[in-house]
Amino acid sequence: MAGAVTLPARADLSALRRRYETELLESVVPFWTRHSPDRVNGGYFNCLDRDGSVYDTTKFGWLQGRQVWMLAKLYRTVDQRPEWLELALSGARFLRERCLLPGGRMPFSMTADGRAVYVQRKIFTECFYVLALAELSRAAGDPSLLREAEEELERVWSWAFDWTKVGRPSYPGETPKRSLAVPMILLNLIEEVTDGDPRRYSAEVEECIRLVRLHVKKDTRRVHEYVAPDGSLIDSPDGRLLNPGHAIEAGWFLQHWARRLGREDLSREAVDIVRWSFAEGWDQVHGGLSYFLDAGGLSPLPLESSMKLWWPHAEALYAHLLDYSITREAADWEAFQRTDAWTFSHFPDPKYGEWYGYLDRRGEVTHRFKGGPYKGCFHVPRALWLCWRLLQRLEAEA
Amino acid sequence: MAGAVTLPARADLSALRRRYETELLESVVPFWTRHSPDRVNGGYFNCLDRDGSVYDTTKFGWLQGRQVWMLAKLYRTVDQRPEWLELALSGARFLRERCLLPGGRMPFSMTADGRAVYVQRKIFTECFYVLALAELSRAAGDPSLLREAEEELERVWSWAFDWTKVGRPSYPGETPKRSLAVPMILLNLIEEVTDGDPRRYSAEVEECIRLVRLHVKKDTRRVHEYVAPDGSLIDSPDGRLLNPGHAIEAGWFLQHWARRLGREDLSREAVDIVRWSFAEGWDQVHGGLSYFLDAGGLSPLPLESSMKLWWPHAEALYAHLLDYSITREAADWEAFQRTDAWTFSHFPDPKYGEWYGYLDRRGEVTHRFKGGPYKGCFHVPRALWLCWRLLQRLEAEA
Repeated sequence: MAGAVTLPARADLSALRRRYETELLESVVPFWTRHSPDRVNGGYFNCLDRDGSVYDTTKFGWLQGRQVWMLAKLYRTVDQRPEWLELALSGARFLRERCLLPGGRMPFSMTADGRAVYVQRKIFTECFYVLALAELSRAAGDPSLLREAEEELERVWSWAFDWTKVGRPSYPGETPKRSLAVPMILLNLIEEVTDGDPRRYSAEVEECIRLVRLHVKKDTRRVHEYVAPDGSLIDSPDGRLLNPGHAIEAGWFLQHWARRLGREDLSREAVDIVRWSFAEGWDQVHGGLSYFLDAGGLSPLPLESSMKLWWPHAEALYAHLLDYSITREAADWEAFQRTDAWTFSHFPDPKYGEWYGYLDRRGEVTHRFKGGPYKGCFHVPRALWLCWRLLQRLEAEA
Repeated sequence: MAGAVTLPARADLSALRRRYETELLESVVPFWTRHSPDRVNGGYFNCLDRDGSVYDTTKFGWLQGRQVWMLAKLYRTVDQRPEWLELALSGARFLRERCLLPGGRMPFSMTADGRAVYVQRKIFTECFYVLALAELSRAAGDPSLLREAEEELERVWSWAFDWTKVGRPSYPGETPKRSLAVPMILLNLIEEVTDGDPRRYSAEVEECIRLVRLHVKKDTRRVHEYVAPDGSLIDSPDGRLLNPGHAIEAGWFLQHWARRLGREDLSREAVDIVRWSFAEGWDQVHGGLSYFLDAGGLSPLPLESSMKLWWPHAEALYAHLLDYSITREAADWEAFQRTDAWTFSHFPDPKYGEWYGYLDRRGEVTHRFKGGPYKGCFHVPRALWLCWRLLQRLEAEA
């Protein structure tokens, strides 16, 4: 299949770069800066309908932290628009002054004015708070925020491998297992907190790379979401669960570290992870990436398994383009092109901006809202921003 | 639409009765009695693939209790097959001797040998344990089991309206709300524990009827899953959430009590609930009952909202037939016929028996398994058994 692929000329790269730039700066970011700000309490409304109207004032901790990070990143790397910095500061103040709980815990959801609605027995809200503080410290030139980020990262690390510390109960019949999500997010946090300096946290980075690799099975070309503590496979629905978009995201997290550490072997492995997960996850009938698969060919238990979600496609866009920039091989360019074509013909909403989040297997929109408990100002703009910057470089080099 | 409907003649009722009998006794019940028994530990395997093979040995407390209830009910009301009673006793022993936790709590999931995997901060596993004990006490002629059921029901009642008693945390930003599920299941439990005698628990029955009615909005012809403590509407995704199949199930639970209490007004209201929920829930494009809707016409948050699940259809079959048996009106017969035609042409698996559980909006099977964490030997055989008995009566009266 890859044999017939034509590698991009400079004009192709220019056209792509312009499309990603336009989508990011004229459709996606304006949707959030226009509709999400809570001018009364600070922070952002997350539940935004198709046209941006607020359909629920409940806020979500993952998405508050992620939006702070994204706006601060745009301010620091794209354009020093005061609006972006002010909004990022507003979100961080909302989280720190109204939401933060004793011991560094952060609610998963909260009222518009910051009272906790639900606190997860997980670590992810706190992870995204670390991202927020770290990037904002650089955008705002405030080193005290970076110290706060480092302190919170230390707490997150101390909880990460034993969730009973964040209140998760432990039962005698549980099958001990490791989750891919944990070392993945820690790799991303450390990259952001250190701004990619591999000297800080080097032991932690090595440990997270080791843990991610426990999930990668070269013989079957698969990345399992859950494995036994020693990395062996678990023959259960959890143990067989594949999430191609998540594995692809893990691939580019690993690739960033492989490049920073100058590790060619790891870079090659990261390319493989993306290629394998794309090959198995791509729906040969209707196109797009399936959300969940079962490694044994059974039906995965989650009801949304065959749906097409926005974020795996966003992750795949950047992962393929990044891999192409390294390998210059047709396989990666073809995968990028295929993902780009399906994604841009299904997810964006040209009328009101931003992307739909949830499609059925055939690619029809099932949920019209643009923002909800798990979809905010993050995966779409992050992928567009990452691709845009990379396309600029590829264009310059062409 | 109903004007053109022909009410059934005796021959139609005979043919239907035979079809329901055959489906129950030759397809559905044999699937579970053949494939689910755990001969080593007692109880039942719940995770059964399309052909009945066990794809995971984890057991699920809701489904263990429900299967005990169903098998005991069949033994007592259909045929005194020793296999049915032995299997029911095996499930009850497994739950009581291996799974029951201090204070009458019961795990949501457990290993094959009964060690807790997860304990929900809800009351439903215990509810289905009450069902199991109550019906088995009658099937096995063991009054001590009924006393156990009554004691467990007393505990469930004491927890039912304040889930902090089963470990659910309470947060300052939560919107106080009532869940339709709680008074509904209590009405069903009391019916089963008392074998329908309205004199026992009469105050509790009245209270549950009052609470269910708080969710019924006559002006908009809707039943909301969650309402404020005083029954007023909550303008949020939870507050707008409709689950037509669940409302239809509430309709027949109420109808049973209306008949037992001789309350014509309540009987009429129960018919209305079923008709309204069916009218709004029926998918005019692809047929079948949608899983979730939003009363404001927004997209409901659950990702599986537009899917077609087996259990709302099973509930609707019996609810419509029950209402027809009372009203003898074409509207109810037409609703039954429409549900019957769509259900029988989409859910049953003639090759291996039982029904598929999960279809996409168009009616295509998305998950091939017959048993999973929430689907067991319950809704399908219960609906077939209820319809079959009612069809026998209608046939005799015709």
